[in-house]
Amino acid sequence: MQEQGAFMKLNCDLGESYGVWKMGQDDLVMPHIDMANVACGFHAGDPHVINKTLKLAKQFNTEVGAHPSYPDSLGFGRRSIKCSATEIIDLMLYQIAALDGMAKSQGITISYVKPHGALYNDMMANSDIFEAILQAMNQYYRPLKLMILATADAEDRKIKASSYGVELIFEAFADRRYTAQGALAPRSQKGSVLDRKSTLEQVESLVNNGHVICDTGATIAIQADTICVHGDNEEAIELVEQIRSLCLKK
Amino acid sequence: MQEQGAFMKLNCDLGESYGVWKMGQDDLVMPHIDMANVACGFHAGDPHVINKTLKLAKQFNTEVGAHPSYPDSLGFGRRSIKCSATEIIDLMLYQIAALDGMAKSQGITISYVKPHGALYNDMMANSDIFEAILQAMNQYYRPLKLMILATADAEDRKIKASSYGVELIFEAFADRRYTAQGALAPRSQKGSVLDRKSTLEQVESLVNNGHVICDTGATIAIQADTICVHGDNEEAIELVEQIRSLCLKK
Amino acid sequence: MQEQGAFMKLNCDLGESYGVWKMGQDDLVMPHIDMANVACGFHAGDPHVINKTLKLAKQFNTEVGAHPSYPDSLGFGRRSIKCSATEIIDLMLYQIAALDGMAKSQGITISYVKPHGALYNDMMANSDIFEAILQAMNQYYRPLKLMILATADAEDRKIKASSYGVELIFEAFADRRYTAQGALAPRSQKGSVLDRKSTLEQVESLVNNGHVICDTGATIAIQADTICVHGDNEEAIELVEQIRSLCLKK
Amino acid sequence: MQEQGAFMKLNCDLGESYGVWKMGQDDLVMPHIDMANVACGFHAGDPHVINKTLKLAKQFNTEVGAHPSYPDSLGFGRRSIKCSATEIIDLMLYQIAALDGMAKSQGITISYVKPHGALYNDMMANSDIFEAILQAMNQYYRPLKLMILATADAEDRKIKASSYGVELIFEAFADRRYTAQGALAPRSQKGSVLDRKSTLEQVESLVNNGHVICDTGATIAIQADTICVHGDNEEAIELVEQIRSLCLKK
Repeated sequence: MQEQGAFMKLNCDLGESYGVWKMGQDDLVMPHIDMANVACGFHAGDPHVINKTLKLAKQFNTEVGAHPSYPDSLGFGRRSIKCSATEIIDLMLYQIAALDGMAKSQGITISYVKPHGALYNDMMANSDIFEAILQAMNQYYRPLKLMILATADAEDRKIKASSYGVELIFEAFADRRYTAQGALAPRSQKGSVLDRKSTLEQVESLVNNGHVICDTGATIAIQADTICVHGDNEEAIELVEQIRSLCLKK
Repeated sequence: MQEQGAFMKLNCDLGESYGVWKMGQDDLVMPHIDMANVACGFHAGDPHVINKTLKLAKQFNTEVGAHPSYPDSLGFGRRSIKCSATEIIDLMLYQIAALDGMAKSQGITISYVKPHGALYNDMMANSDIFEAILQAMNQYYRPLKLMILATADAEDRKIKASSYGVELIFEAFADRRYTAQGALAPRSQKGSVLDRKSTLEQVESLVNNGHVICDTGATIAIQADTICVHGDNEEAIELVEQIRSLCLKK
Repeated sequence: MQEQGAFMKLNCDLGESYGVWKMGQDDLVMPHIDMANVACGFHAGDPHVINKTLKLAKQFNTEVGAHPSYPDSLGFGRRSIKCSATEIIDLMLYQIAALDGMAKSQGITISYVKPHGALYNDMMANSDIFEAILQAMNQYYRPLKLMILATADAEDRKIKASSYGVELIFEAFADRRYTAQGALAPRSQKGSVLDRKSTLEQVESLVNNGHVICDTGATIAIQADTICVHGDNEEAIELVEQIRSLCLKK
Repeated sequence: MQEQGAFMKLNCDLGESYGVWKMGQDDLVMPHIDMANVACGFHAGDPHVINKTLKLAKQFNTEVGAHPSYPDSLGFGRRSIKCSATEIIDLMLYQIAALDGMAKSQGITISYVKPHGALYNDMMANSDIFEAILQAMNQYYRPLKLMILATADAEDRKIKASSYGVELIFEAFADRRYTAQGALAPRSQKGSVLDRKSTLEQVESLVNNGHVICDTGATIAIQADTICVHGDNEEAIELVEQIRSLCLKK
């Protein structure tokens, strides 16, 4: 839901239930976000969950993106699978197409793709995988934007994406500490996941100043179009509401 | 491949390999058929197999249809799964959308849907399931035809389909004996699967007379738009070539 | 946990989480039950969940049974899949063997099998499927008991099971209304799922009198060895505690 | 089938069909091998295929081993999946248990485990994964041997395995060129897969001399207990027969 005056969009992973197993409070978080990254069935989601999530996004006029993954529901797409470029291209096309056609059948349209979990991390860590993903985007029959991590040095990736005709969206993380190089500090590092207070401070800094305080205490520039938030439980949703109010304020 | 003078199209199930496991001689049969029913990943096929099959169909200018199934790769979609109407609608939409978007990404377009295996049989035996399938077709964002079995009494199904805005394609089977009611005799019945000579006679009769000799010896009318053939092995493909020559002759 | 003086065991379906998706409060309900029906990976559970559940059962000295299912995680094993007798035998053997060997590796042993969901219902409704299940039990390399629904007329099933060398365990349902024929009233029937008060009355009657008041108001005999309870949430677990106290009382 | 006078056993991957998809000529190769590595359902095989393969092994009195894999039927277990040690232990236990219990139900018994594909390669390349596999073997409720690649420097692995109470079986490859370090030359390297003549020469050298000519032309010692052969097609099976005759001769 894009409101007047917002200058930082919130995106959230949704549609991650599977069959009888429920995950997340999609109906509670949807009113507070601008972009819904909808699981496509390979790490989570199934045809019924997808349809339900699309209806919810339509109801709140939320922008929708495909959230494709390695094929690994058991591991929730969090385990890297050594795939060839062709395998990555084909699994991306299948998932994007499935979500896109289902969205159109609900009368809405998807506008971007955000790879999930290990595929997202591999995309940021490995330029071959980033390129395979761009090839998939390029082969898809209509242009969609690609959401990647906002880092300190985005220029090379912009140029590469542009050579495939793909426009990038940069996302920052509200609750993760950055390194001096502008990457996310690994979860195993102490203090890498921010508490509520630090999260809100980081959001404020991202929104108003375009920079964050990294793990060395230095200030680094992070140009983000959107901030990733979570809707796992009621506490998380309260936080989203607070983050949202910061994104709206001048 | 639709040639001049053909007045009976041949359709064939294709793209039924899975990962390393190969099924069928897709590359050998594709030149001889008009309509390729491409598996969508739920009973067979996978993102890579689908893409390969679509490229092959494009090369031979073959019309492409989606061949969706119950989710059962272990049973190859041949086992009936008791699904609700909603479940059927959602699994159809997902599979059709996946294939359609991948086809568009190859620069081609799908024009029809043929349910696979147990879903096909259930559609013919159970009017609720037929209706759920029509609802799926109706919900899909653009019109596609639905291929069903040509039976002696097609009128009711035509009316029902029409009420959902769905146009039907009727297919006959070259190598299966019909009952006096115009249904397929069950495979368990002696003589229900025709030998090569009877198959060719049945095709000739379907093409030139619009009727077949059923299991009681009586003549029954079967109005078919297309005949289903198989490309499992080289012998099958030789038979397809012979069937094709019968379909072309005036 | 079988305590002194208990004369009606409680059984509960457990280990039904899958990957990151949690289901049930296994750790809260385990202390209050006697028999844990552990999912084997085909409708729910996975190698890690199974191992965790077995450890929990060991900790509370709970008897363990295999809870095999049709292969359908998306449908949680609640959708009937038309399988041949051979298919049922093989899928039972695989799942029982997997759970049994993992249990032994934890230093415990399984003693019975309770089919899950649609497989359970099909076993009760279709004598061919009941027989296929008995054949699987018979082919398994060591004797295990089979848990089925306690009905008014159990004699035929006892004789059939005995002919395969299989001993039966009969379970009653605490919270489901019975029909005059001693079957469960379908969930679609009004009043078929009992409220808390009626549930406790039914348990008391099952434990002390060996009969229940069925949906016509008549009294019918139900000889049960165990009562099935649920541990889905905290409310359910409170109910289990109350049911348990009734089962212990003289 | 262990025959008199044989001093080098042949092992072969079997039971790798899946549902309707057939792979390999199991019935043709089984008479010529000593050890059948049977797929456990995670990369190939299914409950029915497993049972059929076990019956065949019993008929020819072939020693049986479990052939567990990463969970990846689409990739045939050939894609490395980044699993934690716990995940590897649990997926090994599940698969070994399933196969072991099904074998016992056929009146036979398994004696060893050979990891499949990417899991095998990861075991040889990464000592943490080797150790996780040993832990799984150690946790299994009865001792089974572990088959690994025969390399020039086996001592460290023997000591490590021994610390977990696991006995190793070393296998050599008939048709793969070795490096000077005693590892397999990567398939991408020219000449890494041997032709028929070189394969037979390598077998003869392994059997009679305990060494092979590696890719630099040097002679390196390879102490193998068994040679891995393939039964994919008739040509492969002819080769197995020739290899077998070399293994039998004094």
